[in-house]
Amino acid sequence: MVGIGPGGPLDRTRRAEQAIAGSQVIVGYTRYLDLIRDLTAGKELIATGMTREVERCRIALARAREGQTVALVSSGDPGIYGMAGLVLELAAAENAAVAIEIIPGVSSSGAAAARLGAPLMCDFATISLSDILVPWDTIRARLEAVASADLVTVPYNPRSKKRRWQLAEAAAIFRAVRPGTTPVGIGTAVGTAEESMVLTDLANFLESEIGMRSIVIIGNRSSRRLGDWFITPRGYAL
Amino acid sequence: MVGIGPGGPLDRTRRAEQAIAGSQVIVGYTRYLDLIRDLTAGKELIATGMTREVERCRIALARAREGQTVALVSSGDPGIYGMAGLVLELAAAENAAVAIEIIPGVSSSGAAAARLGAPLMCDFATISLSDILVPWDTIRARLEAVASADLVTVPYNPRSKKRRWQLAEAAAIFRAVRPGTTPVGIGTAVGTAEESMVLTDLANFLESEIGMRSIVIIGNRSSRRLGDWFITPRGYAL
Repeated sequence: MVGIGPGGPLDRTRRAEQAIAGSQVIVGYTRYLDLIRDLTAGKELIATGMTREVERCRIALARAREGQTVALVSSGDPGIYGMAGLVLELAAAENAAVAIEIIPGVSSSGAAAARLGAPLMCDFATISLSDILVPWDTIRARLEAVASADLVTVPYNPRSKKRRWQLAEAAAIFRAVRPGTTPVGIGTAVGTAEESMVLTDLANFLESEIGMRSIVIIGNRSSRRLGDWFITPRGYAL
Repeated sequence: MVGIGPGGPLDRTRRAEQAIAGSQVIVGYTRYLDLIRDLTAGKELIATGMTREVERCRIALARAREGQTVALVSSGDPGIYGMAGLVLELAAAENAAVAIEIIPGVSSSGAAAARLGAPLMCDFATISLSDILVPWDTIRARLEAVASADLVTVPYNPRSKKRRWQLAEAAAIFRAVRPGTTPVGIGTAVGTAEESMVLTDLANFLESEIGMRSIVIIGNRSSRRLGDWFITPRGYAL
């Protein structure tokens, strides 16, 4: 299970590159395989569609059980809303006696934060707005808890073609307890050629273009803009 | 501002290596400079002690204002309890007209999670227990909020020689709402030669050795052990 970071070759760690170079079979979502073309000449590539996570893990495990060295690639960090947990669960369910190593990567939220400034310098929470696997009541309660506790918040999976209202409801929860001027940063396709970054605020951010490849970071009551940067001060005396 | 990941050369991204290679002056805490010895031959190295964060940033900015290309290095991700925010604040306070780039790294919590399994697969919060810069009442309220909202939690800066009781109070907050069998993972000096990993539970984890170089991950009510792995299931139907 190899995390390749959010974007192109510069975001990869040496450990990730070594793991891919040392594998015979590379399994991944089509777009992730495109990001590592420079490392995969002569290897067997198995690409699957975006929503086929379980299938991708099963294929990787089946090949490993046949004795092949397999790299299951994931953008960002595979341990943060990625497929690391799924592959461990499936290996246990199948009683697969294969050695599994999880190689972390730069997370997409860490990469977006770095391009925006330093919004995650203090306490923060990441909460997925996807109510496909978790009921919305649970998600809403979590959002309310972290909004009240003044945590900087990263709403993962903020919006897709089918899920539109969840981000608006999340925004309303934060607006109830934080000023409309609270900085909100949006990074889309961070690290790739299509990257776009927007620095806006809690009152206005819903008007920005936000999709499945976007990371949204909502500041807390201490967060502020400093020129073009978005920072959350840690409280050092300067 | 360059993040070099939690451990040795394998944890670094190519972007971080390029930035260090392209700099004339390297500033950092002594131990971080030791981790990048292979990249710094012929460069000017400026090492400062652990608690001298403000001094380190000022030195880096002063050199940059003199026209030198400076890499201020940080282990893990400089944007997560690192120095990215501090350097931006100081640059603004000093009106320093220097170009600043923040290069993210694999975070120490992401690295510890990968070695433990997949504990951060779902919603999680990171909260620092250091009450040097943030009042304990604020920290306690945040811990109570995320404990009740059933978020996997990473208490950063869990313990130091001088701060001993904070982790015990945090543990009590989680024990009030989660079973004693809840998995807790501890990674110390992750990615280095001194790395040690422990998988224990909420009832017993305070007995483990935990220090300034430790990352503690407290599971939520869905987290569980799967053999030697610590996972938080995301809810896929297998």
